[in-house]
Amino acid sequence: MNNNRYCVVMCGGVGTRFWPFSRQGRPKQFLDFFGTGRSLLQMTVDRILPVVNPDNIILVTNREYYDIIREQLPEVKESNILLEPARRNTAPCVCWAAKHIYAMNPDAAIVTLPSDHIVLKEDAFRKAIEEGFEFVEQGNRLLTLGIKPSGPNTGYGYIQQGEMEKDFSEIFKVKAFVEKPNIEMAEMFVNSGEFFWNAGIFLWTAHSILEAFDKYAPEIAQTLSAPDGVYASSKEPQFIDQKFPNCVNISIDYAIMEKAHNVYVKTVEFGWSDLGTWKALFQSSPRNSDGNVTQNTKVITTDCEDSIFAAEGNKIIVAAGLKNYIVADTEKALLIYPLNEEQKIRNIVNDVKSRFGEEFI
Amino acid sequence: MNNNRYCVVMCGGVGTRFWPFSRQGRPKQFLDFFGTGRSLLQMTVDRILPVVNPDNIILVTNREYYDIIREQLPEVKESNILLEPARRNTAPCVCWAAKHIYAMNPDAAIVTLPSDHIVLKEDAFRKAIEEGFEFVEQGNRLLTLGIKPSGPNTGYGYIQQGEMEKDFSEIFKVKAFVEKPNIEMAEMFVNSGEFFWNAGIFLWTAHSILEAFDKYAPEIAQTLSAPDGVYASSKEPQFIDQKFPNCVNISIDYAIMEKAHNVYVKTVEFGWSDLGTWKALFQSSPRNSDGNVTQNTKVITTDCEDSIFAAEGNKIIVAAGLKNYIVADTEKALLIYPLNEEQKIRNIVNDVKSRFGEEFI
Repeated sequence: MNNNRYCVVMCGGVGTRFWPFSRQGRPKQFLDFFGTGRSLLQMTVDRILPVVNPDNIILVTNREYYDIIREQLPEVKESNILLEPARRNTAPCVCWAAKHIYAMNPDAAIVTLPSDHIVLKEDAFRKAIEEGFEFVEQGNRLLTLGIKPSGPNTGYGYIQQGEMEKDFSEIFKVKAFVEKPNIEMAEMFVNSGEFFWNAGIFLWTAHSILEAFDKYAPEIAQTLSAPDGVYASSKEPQFIDQKFPNCVNISIDYAIMEKAHNVYVKTVEFGWSDLGTWKALFQSSPRNSDGNVTQNTKVITTDCEDSIFAAEGNKIIVAAGLKNYIVADTEKALLIYPLNEEQKIRNIVNDVKSRFGEEFI
Repeated sequence: MNNNRYCVVMCGGVGTRFWPFSRQGRPKQFLDFFGTGRSLLQMTVDRILPVVNPDNIILVTNREYYDIIREQLPEVKESNILLEPARRNTAPCVCWAAKHIYAMNPDAAIVTLPSDHIVLKEDAFRKAIEEGFEFVEQGNRLLTLGIKPSGPNTGYGYIQQGEMEKDFSEIFKVKAFVEKPNIEMAEMFVNSGEFFWNAGIFLWTAHSILEAFDKYAPEIAQTLSAPDGVYASSKEPQFIDQKFPNCVNISIDYAIMEKAHNVYVKTVEFGWSDLGTWKALFQSSPRNSDGNVTQNTKVITTDCEDSIFAAEGNKIIVAAGLKNYIVADTEKALLIYPLNEEQKIRNIVNDVKSRFGEEFI
């Protein structure tokens, strides 16, 4: 295994879209959605392990998730867990991780992964990552993966491909990054064959991305600039606690990818979903003969169709007459809601918070 | 207070009709359905206390409910809790309680109450009980209360009134007891004005009911016949453990009331319900402005009507689009079912038991 290859797993996100399953204290990445015994985060690490030395896996998370990270990934070295003292979106996180890794190994190449997505075709995923590493190790290049769209999804940002790179498989210059489109735009994108979903999976060398920060986001680079011997040493946590909160709150896409000229996309197809909604979860899950998704839950249904049932713990759900519903049950809350209206859940969570307090969300 | 008056509260019943709220280990009488902090059993005792000396309240229950009885009614004397070693319906239970009370006080009069009903007009209830005591204390008479029907309910047995007793308020000879009727019969009953619901509330003297057992159910009377000095002594529990299981399994209605000639009904109206079904509970409970019953539960509903929401513990329910539903949530089970199909719940409970085991029912 190439010991210069590193993986940064970003696992500090909050999330209430899967309320009541995901809560402030336990966001989506820590949940075992499929009842396999492994959370999305654990599956993310499992998936990359054949490609990257275990000691080269770095987790960046918020300080408040330290305990759950330790519990879910006891095999990760203590010094490989980077605890953000404040939430500053992805750009400061990526910059810190790059500086940390560069201090250990200036020849490092890095794949950066979100921790709350699913990948059904893991071999194709790993092949893409390895081909991506080979591409970025050969020059000053920033690479993002573009997922071949399965439909005109309006919930994702899109990447437009430009000229193909010779000698590499399905790698193109990026022509444009596009925000989440409306449905007419999304249909045009998909029909054109030129647009791909932005999955937030990036590859680069530590050197390339730090150079890009110096050039396109110098305020972050300077805020996190430390004397030699700070990063990857016992002085790092204190330095970060002081400096990191001063970083601007900005995504890596805005800060770097949309500005830089050496940005490439590798187009891939490996059964990816960001599981951003209950509907996405429903579509990614196996159904029983009634067309219902029952996750890991004991369910007896009568006249129920196209619904998703999920309960925490050893509990039984008995239901009748529900069509196209979410039934999600936890210790603190029960949600019974039409799948097609799930965009309202965010407002409901705010309503719950203001009427009944933080403990329920 | 008349110290010859006793109350027997029958609280040994099982019940799965309110599954998942009522379970084998915790039947309906022990539940706080209305979130008042008092179970149906506790409310039954509270309701009779102004009429009967607390030391004259006798609880008859199954041995397995001893702990929950002690927890819910710590003020009841230990020797006033009669623990049945086996389930034998109401006749053996009534006979035992009468023998127990007669041994303490041969002049005793007894009101026998189910423990799982509700009464909205408690003053009217107590007035009826006191008038009933006065009636049975004046002669060898067995009195049952007949509830003025609020509609043609097919879930109750009916009592047909005969000739009115002079000098007593609304007391009649019983012309007939009638089993649960079909809907056409029930409508005829209600229109006639002669039929009343059989609420299972009885009054008599200990002497009268024991004489009736000797005459109409001699096998029970003989099985429970003990030498002087056994009942109301430390020898009673052992005697009962040996003899009680030999009694036939039969209700007091079949064994005595339908046979005896000295049976009377006092017709009453005090906001009674046996809460035999979720629908009965729904109808007995205050509704919010959407026509929903939310019990003691935190609920946020959108587009829900005529539904009942009940959750154990400090939990929130968020629901949309449910019309005429039961949503009942406990630690072990969640039921989401149309109120109009609740008669199917009994079969479902059997299904749950056979597929997933006793622990869920």
